[in-house]
Amino acid sequence: MQPERLKIALDMMGGDHGPLSTIPAALAAVEEFPLLDLVLCGDTDLLQPYLADAGLADHPQISFKHASQQVLMTDRPSVALRNKRDSSMRVALDLVDKQQVQACVSAGNTGALIAMAHFVLKMLGGVERPALISALPTTVGSPVFMLDLGATVNCDSDTLFQFAVMGAVMAEEVEGIHRPKVALLNMGEEEIKGSDQIKRTSLMLSECADINYIGYIEGNDIFSGKADVIVCDGFVGNVALKTCEGVAKLIMKRFEQALKNSMSAHLFGWMIKPLLKSIGSGVNPDHYNGASLIGLRGIVVKSHGNATKEAFLSAIRQAVREVERQVPAKIKDRLEHVLIDKA
Amino acid sequence: MQPERLKIALDMMGGDHGPLSTIPAALAAVEEFPLLDLVLCGDTDLLQPYLADAGLADHPQISFKHASQQVLMTDRPSVALRNKRDSSMRVALDLVDKQQVQACVSAGNTGALIAMAHFVLKMLGGVERPALISALPTTVGSPVFMLDLGATVNCDSDTLFQFAVMGAVMAEEVEGIHRPKVALLNMGEEEIKGSDQIKRTSLMLSECADINYIGYIEGNDIFSGKADVIVCDGFVGNVALKTCEGVAKLIMKRFEQALKNSMSAHLFGWMIKPLLKSIGSGVNPDHYNGASLIGLRGIVVKSHGNATKEAFLSAIRQAVREVERQVPAKIKDRLEHVLIDKA
Repeated sequence: MQPERLKIALDMMGGDHGPLSTIPAALAAVEEFPLLDLVLCGDTDLLQPYLADAGLADHPQISFKHASQQVLMTDRPSVALRNKRDSSMRVALDLVDKQQVQACVSAGNTGALIAMAHFVLKMLGGVERPALISALPTTVGSPVFMLDLGATVNCDSDTLFQFAVMGAVMAEEVEGIHRPKVALLNMGEEEIKGSDQIKRTSLMLSECADINYIGYIEGNDIFSGKADVIVCDGFVGNVALKTCEGVAKLIMKRFEQALKNSMSAHLFGWMIKPLLKSIGSGVNPDHYNGASLIGLRGIVVKSHGNATKEAFLSAIRQAVREVERQVPAKIKDRLEHVLIDKA
Repeated sequence: MQPERLKIALDMMGGDHGPLSTIPAALAAVEEFPLLDLVLCGDTDLLQPYLADAGLADHPQISFKHASQQVLMTDRPSVALRNKRDSSMRVALDLVDKQQVQACVSAGNTGALIAMAHFVLKMLGGVERPALISALPTTVGSPVFMLDLGATVNCDSDTLFQFAVMGAVMAEEVEGIHRPKVALLNMGEEEIKGSDQIKRTSLMLSECADINYIGYIEGNDIFSGKADVIVCDGFVGNVALKTCEGVAKLIMKRFEQALKNSMSAHLFGWMIKPLLKSIGSGVNPDHYNGASLIGLRGIVVKSHGNATKEAFLSAIRQAVREVERQVPAKIKDRLEHVLIDKA
């Protein structure tokens, strides 16, 4: 049997750097995956010369889909949804919807991407709300999948339960973790703490044999490797993730100050600074990986708005992996299975 | 006019180290503040020998209040409240209630302290729920006051509004910040984001001339110095603060690994490691300072459970400052003023 080809649409105009990072990432991706075809969505008049310059005007794995508009980072989601129907973001999502591609990747406006993807692709059967999920680093090596990072605010216990199931499928399929340990983010590990939704979700998860539920986890253990999947509502997840970014900046700043003030450290700054920089970007979960928007009837990977070529390439790799593992179908199957078991 | 003496009760038995850190901190405090009298609450049979050993058996600034019980870190708040009426924590709070001291400091079980303090001291007029507030470090030098860090889960907009007023008073009185910039923690800076409570609170704050409200702030800006006071509900604040602890650990771990792997860094590890350690503890907001439980009719300062002598001393200093600045009275006045203005 011949291995199957994959086809993924890229929103070329999204993110702070637009084609300056998406073009090199696309070129690196087709080199890395000989079976991958890419559809570059955006302003072809702008994009084609870039490829011609690189001597790759007629690359066999690359095609174009013109889009006359662009979603800006400042666009309100509702406005983008209504007025940017020919944007590179929307065109890429439409290709997923029409099954002309198997996934799309964007570094554009997160709110607009969530709203558009939700509108265009619709929810998977059994899932009420979409979730943003990302693999974050831990001190033990293997990553932890955290969701929701900002797609759904005010989750009820059914939604949180569905997020737990979806997160477990992601950890299994994308990272190959057997029976991933699933935890609920809470403000204490005792059974009595937290909101009513969280307590109800905890009860539902502990009664579900399909999920390896390990109970509550606190913020200080997100990166400890105690859990493989951490579930919370989108508001809390978003604040936690962005707080990480803030702390990382604070620590790096303190190091810089300490390097300035300590005589010996000053002397060896040339040695320490590159180390600092690599650690700073390596632990910044916001830059660590693409985030997947899951629960939809299609694969959407969100790269960070400030994505470099490397970050966008890593988001493309993640989309490839999700296509290969057929993540949406697996989520649907698992949810059906869980619901039958519950009934 | 003679300067007034201050009197503060210390829960000597709380925290992971108990008297091993509270005794040295108490001795340092009476040395630092000649006008400070301390009432050491706890098992006097255990405490007095410590002071005798230090040659301070009859220190003029130190007295004792015996307590036969101790609240454990594992005690449920409701159980502690019901069954530990002669605990060192409860005895210290009772002294505040009876106005025999002007404040109390504890490193004990946070949940129990909140429940007991709420029960014993009652709320200030105009305040519905207590809040834990702490001064966190920023990249610009001056601290930022964040509340609530875990006293009140599920805050409505009236409660969040009261927290904003209380936070502003703390920043003014404790840190001397003129017209502190108050922000609401949200998942985006746009007006449309966030929950209904947050949007309503934002509207209330923007209509309140007494508060210098600057709008929404995201997690990545907690430590940037953009705001002097950051308001959120106790669940979100607790997760954010504990997540900081987790990230700090992750970054330190990465540094250790990098030091091992880089040849030159390995050579200079002796120089970098102390730097790492000091930065790690300096940016860990959980250890940075005591947290004050505000909104009550008395001053209660919570030191970290893992408090060292230095941390417990810093919590005592904070209690002294709050007594000197008469924080509860100022909060009450400000709230009355704001409510009159609104009416």
